[in-house]
Amino acid sequence: DFLHALEHDIKPAFGTAQEILNQFLTRGIINWGPPVANILEDGMLFIQQARATDTSGLVSVLIEGPPNAGKTALAAQLAKNSDFPFVKVCSPEEMVGFTETAKCLHIRKVFDDAYRSTLSCILVDNIERLLDYGPIGPRYSNLTLQALLVLLKKQPPPGKKLLVLCTTSRRQVLEDMEMLSAFTAILHVPNLSKADHLRNVLETTDVFSHQEIKAIEPHIHGKRIFIGIKKLLALIDMARQMDERQRVIKLISKLEEDGALEDPGMA
Amino acid sequence: DFLHALEHDIKPAFGTAQEILNQFLTRGIINWGPPVANILEDGMLFIQQARATDTSGLVSVLIEGPPNAGKTALAAQLAKNSDFPFVKVCSPEEMVGFTETAKCLHIRKVFDDAYRSTLSCILVDNIERLLDYGPIGPRYSNLTLQALLVLLKKQPPPGKKLLVLCTTSRRQVLEDMEMLSAFTAILHVPNLSKADHLRNVLETTDVFSHQEIKAIEPHIHGKRIFIGIKKLLALIDMARQMDERQRVIKLISKLEEDGALEDPGMA
Amino acid sequence: DFLHALEHDIKPAFGTAQEILNQFLTRGIINWGPPVANILEDGMLFIQQARATDTSGLVSVLIEGPPNAGKTALAAQLAKNSDFPFVKVCSPEEMVGFTETAKCLHIRKVFDDAYRSTLSCILVDNIERLLDYGPIGPRYSNLTLQALLVLLKKQPPPGKKLLVLCTTSRRQVLEDMEMLSAFTAILHVPNLSKADHLRNVLETTDVFSHQEIKAIEPHIHGKRIFIGIKKLLALIDMARQMDERQRVIKLISKLEEDGALEDPGMA
Amino acid sequence: DFLHALEHDIKPAFGTAQEILNQFLTRGIINWGPPVANILEDGMLFIQQARATDTSGLVSVLIEGPPNAGKTALAAQLAKNSDFPFVKVCSPEEMVGFTETAKCLHIRKVFDDAYRSTLSCILVDNIERLLDYGPIGPRYSNLTLQALLVLLKKQPPPGKKLLVLCTTSRRQVLEDMEMLSAFTAILHVPNLSKADHLRNVLETTDVFSHQEIKAIEPHIHGKRIFIGIKKLLALIDMARQMDERQRVIKLISKLEEDGALEDPGMA
Amino acid sequence: DFLHALEHDIKPAFGTAQEILNQFLTRGIINWGPPVANILEDGMLFIQQARATDTSGLVSVLIEGPPNAGKTALAAQLAKNSDFPFVKVCSPEEMVGFTETAKCLHIRKVFDDAYRSTLSCILVDNIERLLDYGPIGPRYSNLTLQALLVLLKKQPPPGKKLLVLCTTSRRQVLEDMEMLSAFTAILHVPNLSKADHLRNVLETTDVFSHQEIKAIEPHIHGKRIFIGIKKLLALIDMARQMDERQRVIKLISKLEEDGALEDPGMA
Amino acid sequence: DFLHALEHDIKPAFGTAQEILNQFLTRGIINWGPPVANILEDGMLFIQQARATDTSGLVSVLIEGPPNAGKTALAAQLAKNSDFPFVKVCSPEEMVGFTETAKCLHIRKVFDDAYRSTLSCILVDNIERLLDYGPIGPRYSNLTLQALLVLLKKQPPPGKKLLVLCTTSRRQVLEDMEMLSAFTAILHVPNLSKADHLRNVLETTDVFSHQEIKAIEPHIHGKRIFIGIKKLLALIDMARQMDERQRVIKLISKLEEDGALEDPGMA
Ligand SMILES: Nc1ncnc2c1ncn2[C@@H]1O[C@H](COP(=O)(O)OP(=O)(O)OP(=O)(O)O)[C@@H](O)[C@H]1O
Ligand SMILES: Nc1ncnc2c1ncn2[C@@H]1O[C@H](COP(=O)(O)OP(=O)(O)OP(=O)(O)O)[C@@H](O)[C@H]1O
Ligand SMILES: Nc1ncnc2c1ncn2[C@@H]1O[C@H](COP(=O)(O)OP(=O)(O)OP(=O)(O)O)[C@@H](O)[C@H]1O
Ligand SMILES: Nc1ncnc2c1ncn2[C@@H]1O[C@H](COP(=O)(O)OP(=O)(O)OP(=O)(O)O)[C@@H](O)[C@H]1O
Ligand SMILES: Nc1ncnc2c1ncn2[C@@H]1O[C@H](COP(=O)(O)OP(=O)(O)OP(=O)(O)O)[C@@H](O)[C@H]1O
Ligand SMILES: Nc1ncnc2c1ncn2[C@@H]1O[C@H](COP(=O)(O)OP(=O)(O)OP(=O)(O)O)[C@@H](O)[C@H]1O
Ligand SMILES: [Mg+2]
Ligand SMILES: [Mg+2]
Ligand SMILES: [Mg+2]
Ligand SMILES: [Mg+2]
Ligand SMILES: [Mg+2]
Ligand SMILES: [Mg+2]
Repeated sequence: DFLHALEHDIKPAFGTAQEILNQFLTRGIINWGPPVANILEDGMLFIQQARATDTSGLVSVLIEGPPNAGKTALAAQLAKNSDFPFVKVCSPEEMVGFTETAKCLHIRKVFDDAYRSTLSCILVDNIERLLDYGPIGPRYSNLTLQALLVLLKKQPPPGKKLLVLCTTSRRQVLEDMEMLSAFTAILHVPNLSKADHLRNVLETTDVFSHQEIKAIEPHIHGKRIFIGIKKLLALIDMARQMDERQRVIKLISKLEEDGALEDPGMA
Repeated sequence: DFLHALEHDIKPAFGTAQEILNQFLTRGIINWGPPVANILEDGMLFIQQARATDTSGLVSVLIEGPPNAGKTALAAQLAKNSDFPFVKVCSPEEMVGFTETAKCLHIRKVFDDAYRSTLSCILVDNIERLLDYGPIGPRYSNLTLQALLVLLKKQPPPGKKLLVLCTTSRRQVLEDMEMLSAFTAILHVPNLSKADHLRNVLETTDVFSHQEIKAIEPHIHGKRIFIGIKKLLALIDMARQMDERQRVIKLISKLEEDGALEDPGMA
Repeated sequence: DFLHALEHDIKPAFGTAQEILNQFLTRGIINWGPPVANILEDGMLFIQQARATDTSGLVSVLIEGPPNAGKTALAAQLAKNSDFPFVKVCSPEEMVGFTETAKCLHIRKVFDDAYRSTLSCILVDNIERLLDYGPIGPRYSNLTLQALLVLLKKQPPPGKKLLVLCTTSRRQVLEDMEMLSAFTAILHVPNLSKADHLRNVLETTDVFSHQEIKAIEPHIHGKRIFIGIKKLLALIDMARQMDERQRVIKLISKLEEDGALEDPGMA
Repeated sequence: DFLHALEHDIKPAFGTAQEILNQFLTRGIINWGPPVANILEDGMLFIQQARATDTSGLVSVLIEGPPNAGKTALAAQLAKNSDFPFVKVCSPEEMVGFTETAKCLHIRKVFDDAYRSTLSCILVDNIERLLDYGPIGPRYSNLTLQALLVLLKKQPPPGKKLLVLCTTSRRQVLEDMEMLSAFTAILHVPNLSKADHLRNVLETTDVFSHQEIKAIEPHIHGKRIFIGIKKLLALIDMARQMDERQRVIKLISKLEEDGALEDPGMA
Repeated sequence: DFLHALEHDIKPAFGTAQEILNQFLTRGIINWGPPVANILEDGMLFIQQARATDTSGLVSVLIEGPPNAGKTALAAQLAKNSDFPFVKVCSPEEMVGFTETAKCLHIRKVFDDAYRSTLSCILVDNIERLLDYGPIGPRYSNLTLQALLVLLKKQPPPGKKLLVLCTTSRRQVLEDMEMLSAFTAILHVPNLSKADHLRNVLETTDVFSHQEIKAIEPHIHGKRIFIGIKKLLALIDMARQMDERQRVIKLISKLEEDGALEDPGMA
Repeated sequence: DFLHALEHDIKPAFGTAQEILNQFLTRGIINWGPPVANILEDGMLFIQQARATDTSGLVSVLIEGPPNAGKTALAAQLAKNSDFPFVKVCSPEEMVGFTETAKCLHIRKVFDDAYRSTLSCILVDNIERLLDYGPIGPRYSNLTLQALLVLLKKQPPPGKKLLVLCTTSRRQVLEDMEMLSAFTAILHVPNLSKADHLRNVLETTDVFSHQEIKAIEPHIHGKRIFIGIKKLLALIDMARQMDERQRVIKLISKLEEDGALEDPGMA
């Protein structure tokens, strides 16, 4: 009856897969540099492989990178690109407060449902949270780990095709859990690291005028840049609350405060 | 039925959000020095950011500082200042004796309710207690940790805005749990640390006469001061029970006993 | 239904608060020396502070000292002295075999009941037992610890006053659990440590004749004395079973056996 | 209903307290040397103290010694000697397979029953087993430990008298659990350690002829003897199966095999 | 009712034993080198031994090797070769999210069913997953370990014959659990390690033309080769998505990326 | 109802005590050397002691030795030799997948049943498995350990006699658990260790001709032999599948492979 409750009470509140994908993509995908295009291209290749009729029927990809790098949004974009008739999202957000068992049963159900469709894509977001990873101890749900280790390698029934897209910001933890070998491939999502990347984002978002962007130029020239796209967009949000004269200064100072902008001489 | 019981049996006994905020603020906010004003100002900025329509919809702020520094009262003041139509308090006081699961479900419910309102503010008080942090072991509720890690990053549905205000006196513990990165911003609430701070409090409270306050002066001159506002108010309470001649001496001796007043030469 | 069972089955067997206080005080409070008077005086001050209308509404006092020092009896005496209309005792004796959850719910209920009365006093006896502290491990009930950490700091509702009196013989354990800072004040109950203290007790109890007490004198002169009042009364009980000639020798030898009477040169 | 089942299903199978005491004493108490008499004498003193009207109402005695030393039998003898109207036995033998909670509730019930009688004696056999002490880990039932720590110190209601007799062969474990201080007194049951002790037992049991006992003499003369009475009686049982000529040799060789008979030069 | 649910809800979804064996063998058994033939031969011997009427009735074989080596497929082939009337598969894939107890009961049921048939073969796939082995801790299901330790040694009833085929890629873990000694014999499945092995696979699969295979030759000549058959087939799958000119290069580069093709000088 | 289910569902499937004993003895007891006779003789002595009317009523014997040494078969033989009217087997094989509690209750029931019969014999097979001993951790069922520690020492009711025969291949583990002292006696079952032992087995089993046995002679002459009887019989089983010319070579090579036949110079 728990699974029954799941479907009737909680799912609707969480929305359909398409709504969830859209929410993961509220801010779209800004093409801030070559890594973005590369990931989308590689993703297309895996989609083709999953679709092909003479292959093994299962392709599982891990999308990993630092916090705020844009992993979830890119995974959502790939899921949309696949254009597979069955798309499901498996996210810790919909399982807050679930017991280990409830989590496992829910994950299992998502996969069981996928096995019934000819072409399926499952987005498993934030694996370290699904595993209830707590760094003090450390603690984790072994039940969920075992379930994922099996499901990520389990062939769909004859004739069915399945693409699994997972995200994590704790690659090392997954390696310690001997989980990496369960994936067909691993895609790395980097932080923005060049002045060009930053410039691209500032130009794409409609917040700063061309003049303002030029004013920013000298502050970032020759600096070491290291920031995730989600964090950068949040700082722009914050700066945009200030009146127009203070925006540029606010953005630069926030970037420095957060360690996103450093003198190259610094470690 | 547990959640049902929660709402019918226990909530009423705990009072409405406004009553709780008021109780957190029984003694008001005394403007004992610049830190108080700064926190209230920064708080207003976050309230604006949360309210703005072109931002991400979620602002989560951690208010941290030593025990008795006034964290809960300041968080309550910010919640009142927000003037958001939906305000809820999530406090360990109302969850005494709850199981891990009951705690998580209650927290989840508070957030679920908030997602239904356009402008919501949630005050999550005393995170280390919500996490059942016990220093021997150490022990903590991983279920609650996982729930908070997810909820503090979860976007409200499209069009909804959410401001989350959390308090803790164990910043280091939260850092060890890799929880700090889940917050949009962190505000520090310091102890009183200057003679001026002390003087401001003594003058604001109507307990001591101007003469008495002057008598106190030489005892605090040149001393290192370090005390939370809640503790200071409690010591004043105690002193006020004595007859008028002994009050000043009692207050000074209590301050020294508690290590709130020390010779600057001491470590 | 558990709480229901508690009140109908077990409470009556345990007796009313007044009966329990009386049983804690079967042997009364012997004024064996200055520490006894001091504790009773300080206690009165806290009672006044709790009662005062312009204070914070909550005073919590920890009464700590070695085993058998008389902590429970003194706490009971303070509870009686308060003369508050609502007095409740929270003792491990009534919770033998309770699960963690049952213990917590019972403790919570005692506090919840107190919040409904204008002037309440709660005696929480033997905190290390309430916490199920087991030195091998060590083990303890984190659920109960969290409950106490919250309840000892929780303000009663507006207009209500609450005095909490706790006892423990394991101050260090409470410190390790970061529990000490939750108390408004801490009172130390020492063992008897001077010949005078011993003499006072022997004279107050009607067991030994003046002659016998004099006979004891040379045996205790110049010795290091260290014994709790409860233990001392038990040794007197034992000695009193012997016929009159052997009593004095028995008492002295028992005191020495238990390490309560030592040559000052010994460590 | 568990307690109900306890009383209806299992108790009868275990027998009345008198039957149990008798079974603990199947082989009687052989007066093999001074320690036996001393323990019985001291025991009488504690019985008197427990019975006296002007004392604290609770006497708890720990009877400890090596395995097979005869602790349970001596405790049973003291319980019989007390001649108290209410005698109950609390033994791990009747609680095989019980959960922690069931064990605790059973122990609690025994004490609760005793509090209703004016003069009660409880025999708590083999405390380390009641505590489920497992040396690998180590493991133990903290629930039972806490229950015993409280019950061993809990005063019976006004006017009631209670004598608690406990046995253990793991004194050190109880010390590590800070349990020793809960007892009013501790009695040590030693192993047999002198040729005389052995001789007394051989003469009391009707197995060996005077001639045979004489034949044993040279084998034990000048040897270090160290054996518990229960073990010794078992070896005699074994020897008695052999035909008459081999008995003496068998007994001696078995004593040596078990390390009960050693050359004094050996460690 | 759980076991009931198992049989009615979940089994059908998983398919009959024959369907499962076939799915394990989707890609057939390519005879890439001598080890393949050897394992199949040894397997036949164990099948004969299990079938023989004058032997002990139980033969249990562990098939172990690196991940992707083809262990499961070879075990499935042996199960088919046995041609025993009763064949059952015990795989973690059908027990995702099961509790320890449910897993054990399911495994037990498979064996209980086998004991009723005269000639039975059980394939226990991926023992480390059945044991819920999690490397952080480490953690494992002791209940399942105990069940397997017993079942792998338990004789079927008189007249019944049982062949148990187990697979694992964590031989060391099983050794640490003292499980190896429970097997009658152990078969090792190696990775492909010679150019010839690779060539055999490329020729057997119909993907590359003879010309392409020749073009691959110089790239693998003199290199250290180390790859499991399953991984190799997956890389061929990937290469086959590219257009014809890029295939060879893609395959070689993928082999190098995965460390399957190394200069012999490298460690 | 669990115990009810036990008796109605599972027992019958497992067979009567006599059937189980017979199955443990399928291959009979081959008199391969003096240790076999000695164990059977000593066993008869314990049977007499258990039967005697003037003894303590309880004899418990531990039969320990390396894996495959024949412990279970010898214990079964002793149980049959006792010819006691009540014989019960307590084996992990019938308790696969049972919870700790179910195991304990089952063991307890076996003993409870025995106490009702005048002359009873209980065979407790493979104690380390009954204890759920897992070497990683290590882990074990403390509930079962406590039950066994009590039951192995518990006297049957007056007039009843009980012989308990236990087997283990992990003597050290039982010693670490302080379990050894609970036994009346310990019997050691060794591996075969001499050429003569081997020869006796080969001659007793009807597999090899006299000529073949002679052909084996030179291969074992002067070698160190070390193998359990169960393993040896299994190797003979395997060899017997080969055609007649290869048998001898197969047996010798298998003995060497398993380390059962070594040059005396080797460690
Ligand atoms: N090139 C881009 N790649 C990814 N996200 C982008 C890009 N451009 C804009 N975005 C926006 O940035 C945000 C990225 O947030 P996202 O949640 O995907 O980050 P994340 O790495 O998953 O964070 P976390 O570590 O918290 O899981 C999204 O709102 C997305 O719409
Ligand atoms: N400037 C101020 N800041 C905060 N609190 C103030 C201030 N002036 C007066 N107060 C009063 O001081 C008390 C502060 O107590 P509060 O519970 O907020 O402290 P806290 O830091 O949350 O303590 P704890 O560490 O126990 O959680 C409140 O009663 C509040 O009304
Ligand atoms: N001055 C005194 N202070 C405390 N108790 C006294 C005093 N004079 C006599 N008594 C009697 O001594 C006994 C003290 O026992 P009490 O249980 O209070 O000790 P305790 O320190 O709580 O012991 P424990 O460490 O076991 O909890 C009571 O019976 C009390 O009536
Ligand atoms: N002087 C004696 N003291 C104690 N027991 C005696 C004495 N003389 C004879 N016995 C008999 O010896 C046996 C002692 O066994 P008992 O069970 O009391 O030993 P124990 O020390 O409790 O053993 P364990 O360590 O196993 O608990 C009883 O059968 C008792 O009748
Ligand atoms: N000679 C072979 N041996 C084994 N498998 C082969 C062989 N030739 C082709 N195959 C195919 O290779 C695949 C081997 O995959 P399989 O699942 O058996 O590997 P595995 O070692 O069990 O992997 P894992 O470590 O993930 O359990 C199967 O699809 C099988 O049909
Ligand atoms: N002298 C003997 N002693 C014991 N068993 C013998 C002897 N001769 C033949 N056998 C046969 O050898 C087998 C011994 O197997 P058994 O299960 O008793 O060994 P075990 O030591 O209990 O093994 P394990 O360590 O797996 O529990 C039985 O089939 C038995 O019939
Ligand atoms: Mg993400
Ligand atoms: Mg606070
Ligand atoms: Mg006390
Ligand atoms: Mg005993
Ligand atoms: Mg496999
Ligand atoms: Mg065996």
